[in-house]
Amino acid sequence: MMMMARRTMRRMVGATAWPWAWATRSLNLSAINDNRIIMSPPLITLDLPEIWTPPNSRDCNPLPQRNCSNLQTATVIDGKSIAEEIRSGIDKEVRRMKKSIGKVPGLAVILVGERRDSQTYVRNKIKACEEVGIKSIVTEFADGCTEDEVLNALSNYNQDSSINGILVQLPLPQHLDEGKILDAVSLEKDVDGFHPLNIGNLAMRGREPLFIPCTPKGCIELLIRSGVEIMGKNAVVIGRSNIVGLPTSLLLQRHHATVSIVHALTKNPEQITSEADIVIAAAGVANLVRGSWLKPGAVVLDVGTCPVDVSVDPSCEYGYRLMGDVCYEEAMRLASVITPVPGGVGPMTVAMLLSNTLDSAKRAYGFT
Amino acid sequence: MMMMARRTMRRMVGATAWPWAWATRSLNLSAINDNRIIMSPPLITLDLPEIWTPPNSRDCNPLPQRNCSNLQTATVIDGKSIAEEIRSGIDKEVRRMKKSIGKVPGLAVILVGERRDSQTYVRNKIKACEEVGIKSIVTEFADGCTEDEVLNALSNYNQDSSINGILVQLPLPQHLDEGKILDAVSLEKDVDGFHPLNIGNLAMRGREPLFIPCTPKGCIELLIRSGVEIMGKNAVVIGRSNIVGLPTSLLLQRHHATVSIVHALTKNPEQITSEADIVIAAAGVANLVRGSWLKPGAVVLDVGTCPVDVSVDPSCEYGYRLMGDVCYEEAMRLASVITPVPGGVGPMTVAMLLSNTLDSAKRAYGFT
Repeated sequence: MMMMARRTMRRMVGATAWPWAWATRSLNLSAINDNRIIMSPPLITLDLPEIWTPPNSRDCNPLPQRNCSNLQTATVIDGKSIAEEIRSGIDKEVRRMKKSIGKVPGLAVILVGERRDSQTYVRNKIKACEEVGIKSIVTEFADGCTEDEVLNALSNYNQDSSINGILVQLPLPQHLDEGKILDAVSLEKDVDGFHPLNIGNLAMRGREPLFIPCTPKGCIELLIRSGVEIMGKNAVVIGRSNIVGLPTSLLLQRHHATVSIVHALTKNPEQITSEADIVIAAAGVANLVRGSWLKPGAVVLDVGTCPVDVSVDPSCEYGYRLMGDVCYEEAMRLASVITPVPGGVGPMTVAMLLSNTLDSAKRAYGFT
Repeated sequence: MMMMARRTMRRMVGATAWPWAWATRSLNLSAINDNRIIMSPPLITLDLPEIWTPPNSRDCNPLPQRNCSNLQTATVIDGKSIAEEIRSGIDKEVRRMKKSIGKVPGLAVILVGERRDSQTYVRNKIKACEEVGIKSIVTEFADGCTEDEVLNALSNYNQDSSINGILVQLPLPQHLDEGKILDAVSLEKDVDGFHPLNIGNLAMRGREPLFIPCTPKGCIELLIRSGVEIMGKNAVVIGRSNIVGLPTSLLLQRHHATVSIVHALTKNPEQITSEADIVIAAAGVANLVRGSWLKPGAVVLDVGTCPVDVSVDPSCEYGYRLMGDVCYEEAMRLASVITPVPGGVGPMTVAMLLSNTLDSAKRAYGFT
């Protein structure tokens, strides 16, 4: 490629008329017309589906035999118990708030469609709210609802002073404009932190977003509580979704890590990941990260939750099991610190949602 | 560190009360009080001055002797002539617009203080506007002006329908709140693209910012026009300023590069940079990037413009010379494609400002 680039340049240098067409062809973007002044295409035309090439084998190696003495065993971060500790702190604050000003935080959830995973996530969030005394309310819409119905519900919650946080459970059905709907959430109630203004403020030095997205915030909290230094460390984020990968990379950078973002179009993800001190895997591909991807001593947070069919296994209640992005058995031998799936990052996401909702209520009521 | 992290973890696992104080101490953030539920600090408390450790020697090696046959010589991107070509295209469009609807784009510039470099930049931008028929107007404030004076001027330009672009020349004097002032620029006229909502939309897949910041847009334009493929390539951005490093890394990612961001707190910048196919240097440190930082065949864009005192050199008119971040003589032997300083990225920044202003006017007047 480099050779070709050089040749192309040589041919072009000094030419009076620039051959506009070649870049258009190499980008293969039919939306571009040939008399544009700027060759850079609109960004939205660049968005491609994030399809990962599956590894050769998804089966992790079995656990090593116990008599192998030189095998490292990572410290497992107990996300569930850390999240419980945080929730217990939130519970106390909510009671103090109620006693002091007679108010409790309120969270509104909008759920569209009948996706089983979304229903489970929403149920868990509502249950968690109840346990800490946060008032919660769910508005459910059928799969075929209109955008206006969702926007109307949002508008009501935006105006309702007893609601401090509004959450639109993603993904939305294809026919709804996710961007338009998320933009309609009041900035002061955007407890998921997905509004582009929040993301912009998360990215920019000197600024503070009103809310940090829950999963990235949970990851940093786990690192800090596990005594992992972030500043100056090489961190690799695998995956670049708007809700996990992107804000996690931005947040790690605000904490002064040197961040690389690996995605489905990365040509050498294994090599790049194997140089990282901190790996945060959020690709959503079961067992993508093998032992060979990890530097010995790396800190590994696994955000992946891929439902894998285990219907033949009678010990699995629901016929499927949640699997992480990381081949846990292999990673255990190399990592210094690791999160399990489930019971690692997952519970932290819900705890951070409660924390964001509490913060929002405190801000709204001027309660300190 | 890893060992320490592991020991710390072991001590903590299973403890009923979390020792809140240690993380606060290790972060050394006096702003944190000890009864917080969440250990993660406010992001703004993390912002540190970006101080680069200077390289051992700032003197580049001299040019190699001509009879060394195995030395590569990079193709030099002529940013000046590419920018001229773009400006000529803008000139034509402005004339077509004027002929068709009787209007020309308008750019308003706000300049605060007497910084010589800022005055030069503004003068160049105004001159460039004139050359392509864009109406321009500058409001100058003394160093000691108030925030309200600047905000009032902004408000007037926001309401003035003949103004399509507003630019606040940075940096502002310390006593002015840069964030507050940039936030006051109408989104539809934010031709610098520095509003956090624009940055959020630049970062997020599925979204399109109204304006892409000029220098990053100029860099991508140079890459596309030089036939450099971006998708799947390893790109390193050196520097993470809100106006160059950050938006450049976000834009490269939207173009599907695998991006790593190197900054002043990166421990091994040389090693990370030496693995990159594309290097964009925007640290603002003369000769930071030596030949040893570059992989043979790398594409190198140098955004740095450091004024270096050359008052002893009678050939330099102003007593100083602009130097890039890249040790040009060394990089020439390794890179496949390179931009010079001056005459590389710099002219593209101004061209992109004109392009953004033209786009804004077209949008405002519905002119296609």
